Amino acid sequence: MSGARDSEQGLRTGPSQDEIRRLNLGALLRYVHLRGPTSRAELTTNLGLNRSTIGALTADLAAAGLILEELPRDRGRAGRPSLVVRPEPAAYVFAFTIEADRITAARVGLGGVILDRRDTPRPRGELPPVEVVAPLADAVRAMQRSIPPGARYIGSGAAVSAMVRREDGLVRLAPHVGWVDEPLGETLAKVLGPDRPVTIRNGADLRALAEHTRGAAVGCDNLVYLHGDAGIGGGIIAGGRPMTGHGGYGGEVGHMVVNPAGSPCGCGARGCWETEVGEAALLRAAARDGYGRELVAAVVDAAARGDAVAQNAIRQVGDWLGFGVANLVNIFNPEMVIFGGSLREVYLAAAAQVRSRLNRNGLPACREHVRLRTPLLGDDAALLGAAEVAFEPLLKDPLLP
Amino acid sequence: MSGARDSEQGLRTGPSQDEIRRLNLGALLRYVHLRGPTSRAELTTNLGLNRSTIGALTADLAAAGLILEELPRDRGRAGRPSLVVRPEPAAYVFAFTIEADRITAARVGLGGVILDRRDTPRPRGELPPVEVVAPLADAVRAMQRSIPPGARYIGSGAAVSAMVRREDGLVRLAPHVGWVDEPLGETLAKVLGPDRPVTIRNGADLRALAEHTRGAAVGCDNLVYLHGDAGIGGGIIAGGRPMTGHGGYGGEVGHMVVNPAGSPCGCGARGCWETEVGEAALLRAAARDGYGRELVAAVVDAAARGDAVAQNAIRQVGDWLGFGVANLVNIFNPEMVIFGGSLREVYLAAAAQVRSRLNRNGLPACREHVRLRTPLLGDDAALLGAAEVAFEPLLKDPLLP
Repeated sequence: MSGARDSEQGLRTGPSQDEIRRLNLGALLRYVHLRGPTSRAELTTNLGLNRSTIGALTADLAAAGLILEELPRDRGRAGRPSLVVRPEPAAYVFAFTIEADRITAARVGLGGVILDRRDTPRPRGELPPVEVVAPLADAVRAMQRSIPPGARYIGSGAAVSAMVRREDGLVRLAPHVGWVDEPLGETLAKVLGPDRPVTIRNGADLRALAEHTRGAAVGCDNLVYLHGDAGIGGGIIAGGRPMTGHGGYGGEVGHMVVNPAGSPCGCGARGCWETEVGEAALLRAAARDGYGRELVAAVVDAAARGDAVAQNAIRQVGDWLGFGVANLVNIFNPEMVIFGGSLREVYLAAAAQVRSRLNRNGLPACREHVRLRTPLLGDDAALLGAAEVAFEPLLKDPLLP
Repeated sequence: MSGARDSEQGLRTGPSQDEIRRLNLGALLRYVHLRGPTSRAELTTNLGLNRSTIGALTADLAAAGLILEELPRDRGRAGRPSLVVRPEPAAYVFAFTIEADRITAARVGLGGVILDRRDTPRPRGELPPVEVVAPLADAVRAMQRSIPPGARYIGSGAAVSAMVRREDGLVRLAPHVGWVDEPLGETLAKVLGPDRPVTIRNGADLRALAEHTRGAAVGCDNLVYLHGDAGIGGGIIAGGRPMTGHGGYGGEVGHMVVNPAGSPCGCGARGCWETEVGEAALLRAAARDGYGRELVAAVVDAAARGDAVAQNAIRQVGDWLGFGVANLVNIFNPEMVIFGGSLREVYLAAAAQVRSRLNRNGLPACREHVRLRTPLLGDDAALLGAAEVAFEPLLKDPLLP
């Protein structure tokens, strides 16, 4: 977007006239995509551009089929009403989530509206990649049949509980489905066609992104998102931007060792946070066989009903949860920590333990403004995050061919 | 710098003509500030601007007294030589470091050249703020006497091993000198005058910044810098930008609990990384009384000469060092980890333990490209980092009045 070839931010030179137009188009489109229908008057104020510029930008975006303009419904006030600008959901992406117990495909319109979705439940455990790709391909074909004429495909995004190489969507390691170096990005590109990009990302990263852009953490520039399913995933927003690390593998907070004397972890280390606060740890402490979020919820229910074994299990896991949260608060000084997936239930049941351990181990300055929260987007967060990365190239440059 | 009022990056609209000029001036000035004398031809190529624009920008910067232009010394090649653009060291800042065993003040010219410096050694331990401010004020007065006429004061920066509130330089907690809520920013502003900003930052953050801008980590966008003195400080660069957290307190990796069964830490928790790898831990394990980097070096020397107690101490601390490094590698997926201060000697002596533990506990994808290094800037890193933040407003907008 900038004239300079240097990747270092401070060395970027000013953009050309054409780049400025694209920047402004992107800013306006992103605004209505994230915040919904907005009057031209509000856009003028909030984007800091004058009325005639806003008029020219909306004309360009309408011509590109990306927004609609209409008269406001509420005409109560006197004077000429300001046109309302809406994102055009005919511009759509496909979003996929590959989770421990289900595979989901959805068609999502600009503005973040889920237009169509197909869920495929599955048993936990090893999962040959073909058993993921075939149902996703079926779902795409089924959804394609009901796409209205004139709709425009922008690209696709997929969330997977895995370490994903950013550049090409190679799944380096997805221990809970048994994948190693699986070229998911390449395989999905074959299903969806080569014309538009397919972006694969870690599920917790995408949940963090979704809660940051349109969920519990809007306006919150420093966020730690924690997701529990078969393991513990982390998604970090630092200084308003996703923190992904060199290759895209950052945020593996589940493999922070918190208890060197603890149990062996699947990764080869001992006492990883995941081994102390994961579903398996809770269910083992509560003397339950099996796995899954329903069983976690059953332990929480039992504790609420006075079951002493369940209460002890919750307290123990809650204390370890607090240990890791305190470490991350000292490292990231976040404004918010969000507990999602099965950690949502665990956190709600053990909030006192978590807060108490955070108060003991967290440095006062690091923890003083941190809010502990549950997700606002619920189980759709990963899907919406996957849609967000698929829309990203368009939002960066709405005149993309 | 942008027309939009929204802090969210993606909602920024394009800059005005005047803003573009300032962006370009800043990019050019930053280039020569960081990389030294550069020909106009090279600037044209590396900044992606045309020759006439470069000519106009250098004229503006020369008129503002921020650069010098001269003929190249080496005239070996045929054709008209390209003028060489140099940063003008007459534009200067004051940089201060308040460390466990010394206080330093320096005058640093544009281009990062230390023009003058005053070191005041001090014994470790509690330190009333006045005993810091008085020698710094004396040093400033002494240095001011030798400033050549026409030099231009830009601002000041200070590094302190403490948790510093970003907005106003309030030192929330500096345990090793015994400060709580000490308004260092305000006090130094009184010494230096109200006209120019005084920026206070955590020492490890500034060392990370200095190594990133002109040291071992140039071009490395994901860096974990670790500094050992009385405690363990951390400075993080993520995605090319300093990771500071909500209030400026991020990077407190010394208070990541790695050993819940470990020793009590001054912060109130138990088994913080600092209690396992700090100077005190090494000296205790080596059965030495006292403190300081010289004693750490003595233990390292003794181990090299075959002293079994010292060797065991190094091995034990090296293993714990590896534990924490593996955690941070899993969390940040960095390209580089730098060991500075007394951790430099410990790392060099225990590199095998650190690497072995990192290989055992670090996830392969997270650790595969990480390089373990020592600082390139040595003991000047904090001073150069403090100068860097003092120059920052000028580099962002060279036409600042």
